[in-house]
Amino acid sequence: MDISQEVLRIKSKLIQRRRDFHMYPESGWVEYRTAAIIAEQLSRLGYHVHVREEACKSASRMGVPQPEVLWHHENRAIEEGADPRWVERMRDGHTAVVGVIRTGKPGPVVALRFDIDSNDLTECAAADHRPVREGFASRHENMMHACGHDGHAAIGLGVAELLAGYKERLSGEIRLLFQPAEEGSRGAKSMVDAGWLDGVDYLFGGHIAFQSKMLGEIVGAVGGFLATTKINAVFTGKAAHAGAAPEEGRNALLAAASAIVHLNGISRHSEGATRINVGTLKAGSGRNIVADKAVMELETRGETTELNDFMKKETIRILEQTAKLHDVACEWEIVGEAPGAESSSGLIPLIRQEAEKMGSVKSFVPRMDLGGSEDVVYMMNRVQEQGGQASYLLFGSPLTDGHHQVRFDFDENVLVIGTEILVRLVLACQEG
Amino acid sequence: MDISQEVLRIKSKLIQRRRDFHMYPESGWVEYRTAAIIAEQLSRLGYHVHVREEACKSASRMGVPQPEVLWHHENRAIEEGADPRWVERMRDGHTAVVGVIRTGKPGPVVALRFDIDSNDLTECAAADHRPVREGFASRHENMMHACGHDGHAAIGLGVAELLAGYKERLSGEIRLLFQPAEEGSRGAKSMVDAGWLDGVDYLFGGHIAFQSKMLGEIVGAVGGFLATTKINAVFTGKAAHAGAAPEEGRNALLAAASAIVHLNGISRHSEGATRINVGTLKAGSGRNIVADKAVMELETRGETTELNDFMKKETIRILEQTAKLHDVACEWEIVGEAPGAESSSGLIPLIRQEAEKMGSVKSFVPRMDLGGSEDVVYMMNRVQEQGGQASYLLFGSPLTDGHHQVRFDFDENVLVIGTEILVRLVLACQEG
Amino acid sequence: MDISQEVLRIKSKLIQRRRDFHMYPESGWVEYRTAAIIAEQLSRLGYHVHVREEACKSASRMGVPQPEVLWHHENRAIEEGADPRWVERMRDGHTAVVGVIRTGKPGPVVALRFDIDSNDLTECAAADHRPVREGFASRHENMMHACGHDGHAAIGLGVAELLAGYKERLSGEIRLLFQPAEEGSRGAKSMVDAGWLDGVDYLFGGHIAFQSKMLGEIVGAVGGFLATTKINAVFTGKAAHAGAAPEEGRNALLAAASAIVHLNGISRHSEGATRINVGTLKAGSGRNIVADKAVMELETRGETTELNDFMKKETIRILEQTAKLHDVACEWEIVGEAPGAESSSGLIPLIRQEAEKMGSVKSFVPRMDLGGSEDVVYMMNRVQEQGGQASYLLFGSPLTDGHHQVRFDFDENVLVIGTEILVRLVLACQEG
Amino acid sequence: MDISQEVLRIKSKLIQRRRDFHMYPESGWVEYRTAAIIAEQLSRLGYHVHVREEACKSASRMGVPQPEVLWHHENRAIEEGADPRWVERMRDGHTAVVGVIRTGKPGPVVALRFDIDSNDLTECAAADHRPVREGFASRHENMMHACGHDGHAAIGLGVAELLAGYKERLSGEIRLLFQPAEEGSRGAKSMVDAGWLDGVDYLFGGHIAFQSKMLGEIVGAVGGFLATTKINAVFTGKAAHAGAAPEEGRNALLAAASAIVHLNGISRHSEGATRINVGTLKAGSGRNIVADKAVMELETRGETTELNDFMKKETIRILEQTAKLHDVACEWEIVGEAPGAESSSGLIPLIRQEAEKMGSVKSFVPRMDLGGSEDVVYMMNRVQEQGGQASYLLFGSPLTDGHHQVRFDFDENVLVIGTEILVRLVLACQEG
Repeated sequence: MDISQEVLRIKSKLIQRRRDFHMYPESGWVEYRTAAIIAEQLSRLGYHVHVREEACKSASRMGVPQPEVLWHHENRAIEEGADPRWVERMRDGHTAVVGVIRTGKPGPVVALRFDIDSNDLTECAAADHRPVREGFASRHENMMHACGHDGHAAIGLGVAELLAGYKERLSGEIRLLFQPAEEGSRGAKSMVDAGWLDGVDYLFGGHIAFQSKMLGEIVGAVGGFLATTKINAVFTGKAAHAGAAPEEGRNALLAAASAIVHLNGISRHSEGATRINVGTLKAGSGRNIVADKAVMELETRGETTELNDFMKKETIRILEQTAKLHDVACEWEIVGEAPGAESSSGLIPLIRQEAEKMGSVKSFVPRMDLGGSEDVVYMMNRVQEQGGQASYLLFGSPLTDGHHQVRFDFDENVLVIGTEILVRLVLACQEG
Repeated sequence: MDISQEVLRIKSKLIQRRRDFHMYPESGWVEYRTAAIIAEQLSRLGYHVHVREEACKSASRMGVPQPEVLWHHENRAIEEGADPRWVERMRDGHTAVVGVIRTGKPGPVVALRFDIDSNDLTECAAADHRPVREGFASRHENMMHACGHDGHAAIGLGVAELLAGYKERLSGEIRLLFQPAEEGSRGAKSMVDAGWLDGVDYLFGGHIAFQSKMLGEIVGAVGGFLATTKINAVFTGKAAHAGAAPEEGRNALLAAASAIVHLNGISRHSEGATRINVGTLKAGSGRNIVADKAVMELETRGETTELNDFMKKETIRILEQTAKLHDVACEWEIVGEAPGAESSSGLIPLIRQEAEKMGSVKSFVPRMDLGGSEDVVYMMNRVQEQGGQASYLLFGSPLTDGHHQVRFDFDENVLVIGTEILVRLVLACQEG
Repeated sequence: MDISQEVLRIKSKLIQRRRDFHMYPESGWVEYRTAAIIAEQLSRLGYHVHVREEACKSASRMGVPQPEVLWHHENRAIEEGADPRWVERMRDGHTAVVGVIRTGKPGPVVALRFDIDSNDLTECAAADHRPVREGFASRHENMMHACGHDGHAAIGLGVAELLAGYKERLSGEIRLLFQPAEEGSRGAKSMVDAGWLDGVDYLFGGHIAFQSKMLGEIVGAVGGFLATTKINAVFTGKAAHAGAAPEEGRNALLAAASAIVHLNGISRHSEGATRINVGTLKAGSGRNIVADKAVMELETRGETTELNDFMKKETIRILEQTAKLHDVACEWEIVGEAPGAESSSGLIPLIRQEAEKMGSVKSFVPRMDLGGSEDVVYMMNRVQEQGGQASYLLFGSPLTDGHHQVRFDFDENVLVIGTEILVRLVLACQEG
Repeated sequence: MDISQEVLRIKSKLIQRRRDFHMYPESGWVEYRTAAIIAEQLSRLGYHVHVREEACKSASRMGVPQPEVLWHHENRAIEEGADPRWVERMRDGHTAVVGVIRTGKPGPVVALRFDIDSNDLTECAAADHRPVREGFASRHENMMHACGHDGHAAIGLGVAELLAGYKERLSGEIRLLFQPAEEGSRGAKSMVDAGWLDGVDYLFGGHIAFQSKMLGEIVGAVGGFLATTKINAVFTGKAAHAGAAPEEGRNALLAAASAIVHLNGISRHSEGATRINVGTLKAGSGRNIVADKAVMELETRGETTELNDFMKKETIRILEQTAKLHDVACEWEIVGEAPGAESSSGLIPLIRQEAEKMGSVKSFVPRMDLGGSEDVVYMMNRVQEQGGQASYLLFGSPLTDGHHQVRFDFDENVLVIGTEILVRLVLACQEG
């Protein structure tokens, strides 16, 4: 039995699934079609499938869209082929899926995590963009897989299929965690709070490309995850005619602009890296009206949870005080949050050993800094707190443009590599 | 023959027309349904009707929407009852209408101006808002008559109807100018450039309420029109992942925020009043992306054309230099512009004399400052340059909320007063 | 008896006195030498001379320097020739002088006001600057007569001398008010509160040049005085090493910089002209230390007292809130304040009549807007409140540079004109 | 021969010298008295003494004060007891001193570096501040040893004295480098350019306290020196009367304030730590004048020379563009600069070995990050480029307040420890 051969056998299926997910991207908490396909597939492969509140704790979800947005996407998913029975069970934004193999034999609990949501971008329509050229570009306005989660979901189904074939060789318990709403760090915590990381001995996750841009490279352990907080803020002032009575206005746009300028001026910190970004602003109702509303999406990050806390505290003070400075009101809420984390260095030799067995792997990098945030850290922290080990890998691939760009695309050969290393790791843990 | 009686006879028709216009508000250059109704009505009353480029010079129109927006509204107007033959003749945003009575008898040229466009607001849906309660609230998302132009259009048709009845008494020439796109100061210049103000001896226009909030009050001469320039600006930077590589971004939102802060800091001017307002901003594509685009609508004003020029010059320097300050690009364009103006004081005695004949008029105020901008000034300046006289009146009315507010409504009794004073003024000019 | 001849007779004395005052400029509340010379001169001319708290109410003085600064200047004044007996009586910043002629005959109370303080500037040392060339440039570092108060003081002494000669013709009471600390609007109130404006029937004051730049022009009535408030603010933060621990600092300079940017952004007001100026800032102790202190001098103005109150309120909110925004403390105090005012229009005919008697007057302008602040308004308001009349004149003169500039100088022929018109007005009031 | 005993023997002399330097602090390039004492002492001990351009290359000095400032301090130094012959030789700011022992025997070249300048601070005058209590507080207004360089100079003389006693045991060459103007990173480069680091095999320097706050602790190798650039900027606008003609002004203070706000907003960098600090600002001539001048001292830092270059480039663009934004001029110049550096790790075992021989050493820390800048890096880089080794140590001491604070003081027992470890290291290098 040769794992490399087995994976190659399903290569075209991996690509076809990735392209299907790519055509129907769904953003955080509305991954109804994606999750329904995954649940159906896991079910057919003989997994115990858990959805709804079994898979994610309802109250622990962050940044869930308004009910009418959820309903709209539930209907759209069904129109686009999702099985209505699964969609029904996932209603109201419960789009996490867990597939479990319980072998009944003593052995370790091994969990794998795959994120499945898309970004809020409209995909590039240029003829030379491969998804356009080859006919699998996004069919959804303002949604696009620009971070490779379509590939992650396809890898997850590939792993599920192969492991199902090795069921006899497995011991302990295998948990495949298909996580919604990674973007914005909104989803992982709800699966942790549903208990799926409890008792886990080994957790693996991974990401296509990121800092690793060469096909055939595997990074064994990503560290330096930046802790992050996602905040929405609304400034509310008072409209007035800008010509006839400007002094009667309370300018919410001016307040938001001041806040942006001052947020960028938060002091650097001597203990490590910090970040602040106001990513979007929408304000005002007309050119000649003093703007009475400004809506802002922003985020902070820190090399450690403490550094992010420093940024969060400063950010909130600045939001509140610039509002008072301009005599307007400001309401803010935290819509996503993730702590810092580090992969377990003890797993690196195991991962290196398995990677070196693969003909497709040309380079193994033991550890790399992420320099970004990923809410898998909630899962990693839980596993490590309980004495388990967790590692987050990178599956190297060249890109046509950076992550979160409208021309993003990757080399689909990476799907084979990602699937194979994860299958190998699950099997190796049995033996370990 | 008693004019007051004549007007009262058509009062219910005035109200019905105003409510019809209110239900189907159309913003600048897409007033297809409104203009088609006006043209049809003028035509039935025996006026020579001029539309398309006869009524407004195509190249002099400012801020015309994109073709697909125009097409969409042409179709909607027809669906909502506009006569397709008129709409056909107004295609591509030529929604000005001129109705002319040429008496053939020697006499003055008298012009009246009525603006007909709506605002970009979604009308308040609360049950206690009268247009909702009485069933004539706007049926158009994001369009609403919140500045009384529905009333102005109704008054214009009322005046047209009464003057048609007095045709025998008239001499010289009467021109009724129904102007699109007053909001944003975009439409008047195109009617001036089409020649309709040339040779005019007397021009009258007027506005419901504004500074005059008492029913039965007439202001004879509005002055102190602020000169104004309307500008759109687009900042273009470079997107980057805000966590992984913030220094690679060029932050268009930060640049726009700086520009807003600095625009508000333009020096006051010792020679008179100035204004600056950034009314709207839309920026950014996602919370964790350095924003690569920010789109801004703004305006300047000045008590004189020179003062507005000072503001315009400073504004443009600040837009360009804040872009360089943040290493992004800025493109701006002027999308509307109006000079300052003053009503002809020589007309005040005539207007007072006519107002005092009206039982419905309780108070006559000779002159008031507008403290705002109105593009009728293009017309007034043209008439005055050629030796004619022009006055802009206010027709007092209480309001339920300020102009450009979503709860705006006025006392419909003002329609009778506005119609009567304008008819009286036209007749008085015959005699003058 | 010809007044014009009398004034010409003392022309060289007027110039010599002006140049003496110019060489020894003294800023607000330290005009010891200037005031001692004036007091001595009035005394010799037979005036009742009031100084110390008789002339100005101690507690009503604003912005009095620290005691050690006062002492330093008392000593310097004596070193530079001031009579120590006068200086002794003026100690602790009581530098107002009032000279009174009480005729014992029934008649009006006429008051004239002359301001005597210098500016905080170091005079230009260039050889082509006339005060340098002709040897009367300021001998005091950082003090200079750059607003013509040296000329006002000289005119005051000229008027005193001539009126003393006409004593027999006078009735009622004549009060010559020599006021300290006009710059910063700090002195007039203390003379008002000492009672010198009570019972005044006619008050005249005047200024060299300002908007009137032609020799031989007299402006009869200045109006449009801007109400003003003078504020000092101190931001106090926490120092920290900018390299080793920037986050431990609380940046007082950054807070002050934000405040300046935001103060300039206070909304324009539809009811009239407003002003804001942060004139000076001193902050920080070293390049590599987060600045823990920033000291700011600023002022607001308004066309009316209400408009200035709007500016003052906004300013104070911005000072306090930017401090909170940057987590530093801010203490502010009002160090000067003056209301708005208007000259009594009823006096214009009288002033015109007297001006037209003067061969040296080529142009009479009835009224002009100041577009600035002058604390004579405290005196004018008090006189007018009690039923008296007050007017503030301009004595036209070309200038070598603007007021408050280091190259400021005026045409000394204006001294003759200023003296003559004021003497004529006092005499005319007797007859009036 | 026991080194520890030898050092204890001169302990009171070490303290007396430190207190003498503390009483007469001299800032960068005016250390005439300090340097004259050092030169005289080295001369008496038999060192070859090099001063003037032999010790520091004239053109490589940065931030030298104006000639009149230098002259003033030359005279003061003589008044305060400096030998006029040494001062004469150091004129015009040539205050570096080098003392050399040339043994004539083959052996390594060992250099030690001591910085001798004070800070621009006025020492705390409170009775509970030990220098006040014990009578050795600074006698110079605005100069104070608040960074321990008085101790460094005393240690340097102590080392000189002891090494002179061991002359027979020495081989190769010993160079004692007494460096002026460390504050502001202005002096080290001039001694490097004079050639004193050429051919050096071992370089040692050290600092009292900094991150090491325990008496008896020695840090063997400081790394993580931040590269830095020191910049002065002058904004020049146009003065105008803030009430009468604000629009005629070009506000240099507003421009500087904007620059400060925007400089604090320079993007964080994903490759490492950066810093920006505007430490001082002085602007404006009067409250009611639009400020025409603003003078700013600022600095950038970066974890690497490249990161500092990024900050420098952004800073210069922001200075230039905010000037244009506010229509004023900006001139800037670089007045100090230092690259990043790292101590040679190969020296740590040697330093540990010597430290462990000392009874007074309770703790040895191999390496620590400075998190600040020190211009010794110019010297370290030169030595390392040529194949030599260099290490910068910390001599632990508790402090009464942080470095650069007016209450700064250290535990004088550290003088003994600093002297002993450096003498031991010189001797150990002989053997090495």
